Amino acid sequence: MDIKQQNDPTKKSGQRLAGDVDYEEASKIASYITPVPGGVGPMTVAMLMRNTVQSAQKAADLLLSASWNLSVLPLKLQTPVPSDIEIARAQEPKNIIQLAEEIGIYPREVSQYGSKKAKIALSVLNRLSSNKNGKYVVVTGMTPTPFGEGKSTTLLGVVQALSTHLKKNTFATMRQPSQGPTFGIKGGAAGGGYSQVIPMEDVNLHLTGDIHAVTAANNLLAAQLDARIFHEATQKDLALYDRLVPKIKGTRKFSNIQLRRLKKLGIDKTDPESLTTDEKARFARLNIDSKHIVWNRVMDINDRYLREITIGESSTEKGLTRKEGFTISVASEIMAILALATDLNDFKQRLANMVVAFDKSGHPVTADDLGVTGALMVLLKDTIEPTLLQTLEGSPVFMHAGPFANIAHGSNSIIADKIALKLVGENGIVLTEAGFSSEVGMEKFFNIKCRASGDVPNAVLLVTTIRALKMHGGGPTVSPGRPLAQEYTKENLELLRKGIPNVLKHISNAIKYGVPVVVAINHRSTDTEAEIELLRDACKQSGAFDAVVSKHWALGGAGAVDVAKALFAATEQPSNFKFLYELGLPIKDKIEIISKEMYGAAEVTYSEKALNKIKQYEEQGFGNLPICMAKTPLSLTADPTIKGAPTGFTLPINDMTISVGAGFIVPLTGEITKMPGLPTRPAIYDIDLNTETGEIEGLF
Amino acid sequence: MDIKQQNDPTKKSGQRLAGDVDYEEASKIASYITPVPGGVGPMTVAMLMRNTVQSAQKAADLLLSASWNLSVLPLKLQTPVPSDIEIARAQEPKNIIQLAEEIGIYPREVSQYGSKKAKIALSVLNRLSSNKNGKYVVVTGMTPTPFGEGKSTTLLGVVQALSTHLKKNTFATMRQPSQGPTFGIKGGAAGGGYSQVIPMEDVNLHLTGDIHAVTAANNLLAAQLDARIFHEATQKDLALYDRLVPKIKGTRKFSNIQLRRLKKLGIDKTDPESLTTDEKARFARLNIDSKHIVWNRVMDINDRYLREITIGESSTEKGLTRKEGFTISVASEIMAILALATDLNDFKQRLANMVVAFDKSGHPVTADDLGVTGALMVLLKDTIEPTLLQTLEGSPVFMHAGPFANIAHGSNSIIADKIALKLVGENGIVLTEAGFSSEVGMEKFFNIKCRASGDVPNAVLLVTTIRALKMHGGGPTVSPGRPLAQEYTKENLELLRKGIPNVLKHISNAIKYGVPVVVAINHRSTDTEAEIELLRDACKQSGAFDAVVSKHWALGGAGAVDVAKALFAATEQPSNFKFLYELGLPIKDKIEIISKEMYGAAEVTYSEKALNKIKQYEEQGFGNLPICMAKTPLSLTADPTIKGAPTGFTLPINDMTISVGAGFIVPLTGEITKMPGLPTRPAIYDIDLNTETGEIEGLF
Repeated sequence: MDIKQQNDPTKKSGQRLAGDVDYEEASKIASYITPVPGGVGPMTVAMLMRNTVQSAQKAADLLLSASWNLSVLPLKLQTPVPSDIEIARAQEPKNIIQLAEEIGIYPREVSQYGSKKAKIALSVLNRLSSNKNGKYVVVTGMTPTPFGEGKSTTLLGVVQALSTHLKKNTFATMRQPSQGPTFGIKGGAAGGGYSQVIPMEDVNLHLTGDIHAVTAANNLLAAQLDARIFHEATQKDLALYDRLVPKIKGTRKFSNIQLRRLKKLGIDKTDPESLTTDEKARFARLNIDSKHIVWNRVMDINDRYLREITIGESSTEKGLTRKEGFTISVASEIMAILALATDLNDFKQRLANMVVAFDKSGHPVTADDLGVTGALMVLLKDTIEPTLLQTLEGSPVFMHAGPFANIAHGSNSIIADKIALKLVGENGIVLTEAGFSSEVGMEKFFNIKCRASGDVPNAVLLVTTIRALKMHGGGPTVSPGRPLAQEYTKENLELLRKGIPNVLKHISNAIKYGVPVVVAINHRSTDTEAEIELLRDACKQSGAFDAVVSKHWALGGAGAVDVAKALFAATEQPSNFKFLYELGLPIKDKIEIISKEMYGAAEVTYSEKALNKIKQYEEQGFGNLPICMAKTPLSLTADPTIKGAPTGFTLPINDMTISVGAGFIVPLTGEITKMPGLPTRPAIYDIDLNTETGEIEGLF
Repeated sequence: MDIKQQNDPTKKSGQRLAGDVDYEEASKIASYITPVPGGVGPMTVAMLMRNTVQSAQKAADLLLSASWNLSVLPLKLQTPVPSDIEIARAQEPKNIIQLAEEIGIYPREVSQYGSKKAKIALSVLNRLSSNKNGKYVVVTGMTPTPFGEGKSTTLLGVVQALSTHLKKNTFATMRQPSQGPTFGIKGGAAGGGYSQVIPMEDVNLHLTGDIHAVTAANNLLAAQLDARIFHEATQKDLALYDRLVPKIKGTRKFSNIQLRRLKKLGIDKTDPESLTTDEKARFARLNIDSKHIVWNRVMDINDRYLREITIGESSTEKGLTRKEGFTISVASEIMAILALATDLNDFKQRLANMVVAFDKSGHPVTADDLGVTGALMVLLKDTIEPTLLQTLEGSPVFMHAGPFANIAHGSNSIIADKIALKLVGENGIVLTEAGFSSEVGMEKFFNIKCRASGDVPNAVLLVTTIRALKMHGGGPTVSPGRPLAQEYTKENLELLRKGIPNVLKHISNAIKYGVPVVVAINHRSTDTEAEIELLRDACKQSGAFDAVVSKHWALGGAGAVDVAKALFAATEQPSNFKFLYELGLPIKDKIEIISKEMYGAAEVTYSEKALNKIKQYEEQGFGNLPICMAKTPLSLTADPTIKGAPTGFTLPINDMTISVGAGFIVPLTGEITKMPGLPTRPAIYDIDLNTETGEIEGLF
């Protein structure tokens, strides 16, 4: 049966179940269901099916102004808390079509990928355009230990609490994690304990193929870039022109994308034969400077040997070798664009604008100059639809796009947030995560993402742990693989007190945007009452709307009810959201505002290289873009070893890059590894597929 | 609604609709369908739904011994025949769930990818294990012009005729095409005219992600290979051992894959602490010779600059650079393995066996030695399920796996064929395609694929055109982009007569296997009656079961009814199938049998390099593998410029490679390009996405 199409009122009549009651039609439909004659009364079944479908659609419409009647997946809590995969396996997800219906998505807006994940059509946005948005909350964190302090897990726990315990329409929106690290150092990216997205295997593997499509698009552009350099180097102007605009059945014709290039060159002609020799040469030659290429190939694998390579060494490339390097796929500018696009047109325009190289006169060469925009769109067609998943307790999650949080802005897609905000409705709430700590992730969320989307945040949920605060207070080094020192497992008010300024700085960062902030204290079993009290008081005194302990890891939504209540109350406060800086300011001013206001720096210094690039960007007309700082989240400064909440320091900008399509300027404050490597003993050794049960083993 | 799970009798009772009638349960189910209270009588609906589902399942069972009641998609034929994409767009495919039900697949065995494609569970094979197979036909071709003579199109046309006009249960099984060439030189891979697989955009783009998964698996193995070389080069034996078998919470433990390696090394111990220093070193060091690596990275893009590269040039790799090259993804041995695996266990064993390098003593190093088998299986988990699509007239197509036809065997998966053979049932028929012409593709189909599967072919359908035969008779060169000479567009019995020996050689090739052969004359509008008669007579006189004109391109199934009838009659002949050679023969003998019997060569010569490798393979115990000749299909010889049906020539073997996991030895008879490039004006320039309609434009 065609669930999607049965419900689609836009389908031509005469097809399937659309249109008015028609017995002949109904009988035909029924014969689909009972394909041999003599099955159960086909007409009755067909009519009943239609009633069901119509009623489901009516129900979906009703939901827009009401609370969802979400069927909850009960947790079977165990102590001690089992491994993430054991917890995830113990829960049978709802069929994704059922979840979609529960939250007011029409069946025809759902493209299933198996029974547990689905892509949701952008047309939902049009259908619900007159509806009011729900409340919008960004989840951020303090300066973390290398373990991370549980932003995703807290987000999921609070969503589980809001949706299943407080019965609020609630959506989680999250980034899709890269597949590469899944096989490197263990650690899933789907929450943990009793606060997870399921199915977690899918989240950490191919999901619905978006990263693969981004990889393909990125690398097609790279291949076309090098092929173009090769063909220009080996052909004379007119031969090149004749091949670019070939005679087909006797006539030459420009393709649409070639007409765009003519327009850009100021050549107002449409007949390929009418160009002058000079115009033909200008059209045909991009004159790319092979020493000034800023586009690189990508792969979603931790492959250290591809960090720096030499390409073009086959004799077929006639000595046109050049230095190149692969980064991991999620570092592709295309991923940042997917996350920032507000619709298909905006997506296409941003792809067209991507600067991939500079020509021999120093002018930018774009993806559109290479003729590749349309091909990229075709490869990326399905990626624009967010993937619907669910939490362990059955509430909806959109996982969509996963840009890096250093050289990109580190948030999931605007489109996922927009659809979620409409679906939850006026009284609902959407929680989204911003990668890294508040001075990096939240800052970019506000100044880049919210600026692009126009959506206004209502509250900040700031995740903190007593462990991390003790580290900032001077506790011993915390590192994965080594047991925690007793400073972290026994009460130590002194260390905690010394570390608290770090979280206070993050609270003050949020308040600067005019948005209320709720602190979630991600609970660990060794935290004491006195420690918690000390921390709560400090947070509230410094302007937090509330500070609440959350035990979602051990208890799921039930453990996060208090945070959920505080957060919902915060969203009912007036939000006076404002950006930190105006786009029209000079690039250096914008960098300095961020560095001083968010990090606590006293001044910013620039390398010669960085200064030259700033000058160049402003001359090229890119000066009005927002800033996307590439800075470590492990310190408020650019030096990951400096803990606490220092002030008066100098922030060094070593270099700059720009992502014109994504639409931001990236100052680099240190070395950024864009291609991880596999350790001596990667997770590969534990991972297996049981060929009897078909189940994955050893994954987290 | 959860169609898949509602029907699954293996689910625990209490879940969804499984188990006996239970009103409470039914009411709960109904509440899924009508998520707000007050919808139409939920209990009634739920019970009716259950009846429907049970009846559908009963119907599916009945189908096993009966004819399918396939609902046909009528063609709206136009003259002149519109472009492939226009024809494909004009046809609305059946929902894939409906098609699955029509052919006896249970809903729970279907994983939808949107509404037009689905993966089918391997469990179908178990369910139907006691059923008899249908008839099995391989579609092959004569020596083609560079246009190709329409093997896929003919296959689809005949399938459309058999299923919709002759009402036989008929399945097409085909290879998935590479995505790379889609953006290079135009030309789809989903049939053409009124004989196509739909949706053709999906076929030529990501489909259900199998090629992306093969790419990821191939490259994870490559990354692990280089990372291992790096870690061995930079660590002493014991440090390496300690990292490979790390102390976790005080104890060391081998993973399963490490225990397999110990066993291979003959070390009969399970406690990591009990190994001697020498044993630890032997376990920890693979001693890979970085000059003797036979595994390479892949990408599904036409990227000529990656043909030969140098990797490891970042300072982080400490000077351990090496030469490397990317091939296109479908050339990965993993793709050949996917096509040859008969079940999950066989798949895993073949992956484990892949030889990726040789150690410094010249011994093979396998994927299993690198610990990567389980991780590959996890990445490839979903690829083992074939993808169900449909023809333009609504009959079923499996598209599954797409290995190269030169360095691999060029056929779709054994698993797709096996499932299809069960589904069509005893009186049904499965048509599958073998890449290239009969002396290459059919030969490999019989001697490699049928040997691995144990399935016995019943007939050969040999596709021929009068155009190609005239070329073999001495007609002018035929090449894409240039108009056809008049020899091809006007009657020319003389040229045809001279070219006919080519098709006769292919007929005789098929007959050597004891299988009846039907010749399909793929009709072109300029073919004359006299030409057709001449060709038909010659074919029949030389032993073809029949030779019939087919007009499927212009007319769909209706144009192929005569071929379909002849083919079905041929499958009712006794098949005395036999292999061409025994595996136990020396490698050179096997190569010579193929070259003499299939190509018409008088002798085979070997380069020094080839002779050394043959010796090496036999010493290493690989001598018993079948042969997978890498030879051009454009000539019966190894020289693509030699036409007709020459005999007495010498076939030169320049080099050899081996695919131990896939299980064949590959003699190379010429240069094989495993990474195509983009031309000066690739198809990229025409391809676009209409952001208003969401439709793809300019793709074929």
